[in-house]
Amino acid sequence: MMEKHGNLMQFRPDIKVVDATIRDGGLVNNFYFEDDFVKKLYETNVKAGIDYMEFGYKASKEMFDVKEFGKWKFCDEESIRSIVGENDTDLKIAVMADVGRTDFKKDIIPRSESVIDMVRIATYINTMPAAIEMIEYCHALGYETSCNIMAVSTARESDINLALELLGESSVDVIYLVDSYGSLYPEQIRDFSFKYQKIAQKYGKAVGIHAHNNQQLAFANTIEACAYGVSYLDATMAGMGRGAGNCSLEALMGFLKNPKYKIVPVLKFVESEIVKLKEKGVVWGYDIPYLCTGILNLHPRAAIAAVKSNDKNYSDFYIGLWDRED
Amino acid sequence: MMEKHGNLMQFRPDIKVVDATIRDGGLVNNFYFEDDFVKKLYETNVKAGIDYMEFGYKASKEMFDVKEFGKWKFCDEESIRSIVGENDTDLKIAVMADVGRTDFKKDIIPRSESVIDMVRIATYINTMPAAIEMIEYCHALGYETSCNIMAVSTARESDINLALELLGESSVDVIYLVDSYGSLYPEQIRDFSFKYQKIAQKYGKAVGIHAHNNQQLAFANTIEACAYGVSYLDATMAGMGRGAGNCSLEALMGFLKNPKYKIVPVLKFVESEIVKLKEKGVVWGYDIPYLCTGILNLHPRAAIAAVKSNDKNYSDFYIGLWDRED
Repeated sequence: MMEKHGNLMQFRPDIKVVDATIRDGGLVNNFYFEDDFVKKLYETNVKAGIDYMEFGYKASKEMFDVKEFGKWKFCDEESIRSIVGENDTDLKIAVMADVGRTDFKKDIIPRSESVIDMVRIATYINTMPAAIEMIEYCHALGYETSCNIMAVSTARESDINLALELLGESSVDVIYLVDSYGSLYPEQIRDFSFKYQKIAQKYGKAVGIHAHNNQQLAFANTIEACAYGVSYLDATMAGMGRGAGNCSLEALMGFLKNPKYKIVPVLKFVESEIVKLKEKGVVWGYDIPYLCTGILNLHPRAAIAAVKSNDKNYSDFYIGLWDRED
Repeated sequence: MMEKHGNLMQFRPDIKVVDATIRDGGLVNNFYFEDDFVKKLYETNVKAGIDYMEFGYKASKEMFDVKEFGKWKFCDEESIRSIVGENDTDLKIAVMADVGRTDFKKDIIPRSESVIDMVRIATYINTMPAAIEMIEYCHALGYETSCNIMAVSTARESDINLALELLGESSVDVIYLVDSYGSLYPEQIRDFSFKYQKIAQKYGKAVGIHAHNNQQLAFANTIEACAYGVSYLDATMAGMGRGAGNCSLEALMGFLKNPKYKIVPVLKFVESEIVKLKEKGVVWGYDIPYLCTGILNLHPRAAIAAVKSNDKNYSDFYIGLWDRED
């Protein structure tokens, strides 16, 4: 039986808000954020009571040319320190490391020497053993860890069950439900939340959610997961993120009842920094091509291309998706 | 106990989709739609398997100057007939009549002489007896009727209970849950749906939902209400409607499983007609000022003004709403 956790009058102290603006937003602008933007975002997150700020990826410099991306694709220790100093705040620092795209044994240093608090390990369902290896490595170095299993809307349920058991038995702290294609409806999110929670409770883990806005459901799915016990909630400023983007932080601040969360600093950041970014032509957010890939449970890459080329032949686009093999 | 109705593999034959583009969209452009637009919308709705098309209001010509509004504010019989002829289709025709703003005894003719099938009576909670009078009048003339109680998010629950009992005992066919301010979260929509359903089941009525997109929850709230038994679902092309707009018809078509519903005609209409309308400068849809009035459960009028004047001082706007008395 699925049980509601908490109600709309109180707050749950177990909830943690994760600002993923630089990391997921970086997928829109190749991680070219100005230092001033990142610094202001950090200060805003501190003021707004946000629990974690994800800076970007720990991507392999062997696999990705540092000249082709902004520095937040790599998140060198000194890059983060140039923004946060010793980070003498309650805001924790997170980075993401993709399975197969990170030289983790080289690039991840012991936590005692780092300002990073959490390493979020992103994996597809078919590389769970590699994810577990990274989790154990980072855990042994002293980090909090999460495992973000991507694209579960296209994975087999039996595989998801096996993956969750593996994670339950691992040292991971947080297991993330990730709706990569923005294809899941709230009732499916509740079923997934229940499945993830069951394992998490058995093994003493927390569950998180990372939602995409292809069908304008990112915020709804985030608060639905939350109502059914998920406690790590990802959001970004104005929903900045690949394609249709994410759950918007300002909407989440309006929903959460813990008085430590403040919406006004978030609105100030959006009006002073995000508006500028949009005026420069950086594009993300709900649009009909994303709805189409979301409905069909497909990767949004065709929709990103359609929006970029300003193609408004929505019906042809939708029909064409049926023939697509990606 | 709240029970889910149906699942995501099957469809429920009791579901009816209501296209409210002209009526709620008319609030954006003072009901000035070209005949060609309305004709194409009608043809699209027929092709897409939509159940009802709402043409506009039956507004009083004593109270509103016909020179200041397009004809769909008044929905004369001949205006509708010029679009639909005898309406020899499965699509039913609806109009809305506001309590206190309709000369219903003069302007609503017997159904046997009209192409209109349903009169939707919109009321606030404090004018229920006037709404009941209109319901009984229209019912006696042969029409299907609905009652749309607006702004229930600011009404007292005890008053809502009394209003629902009155409606249960009336001749009304459909009782509508209306989230006028776009302030309700999915879990609240479920509670309201349950309350409305309970009365509806007792008296043999159906329940409908009309959602607004202030917090990007219009689609989520519509399908959540649907999952818990609500069967009349309002939507509009590209979500066209006052302020943040409504549940978008294309998203709803993607969700519903009844094979009679077709998304492609809807996408074709959006790409050929709605894109043009937007290019002409007609503005609606989610924006941060609407989020702010939604969070605070306020009428969106201040947000509409802010969006119109392109005011992006979101934090000042939000803080200012706390002092507002409307």
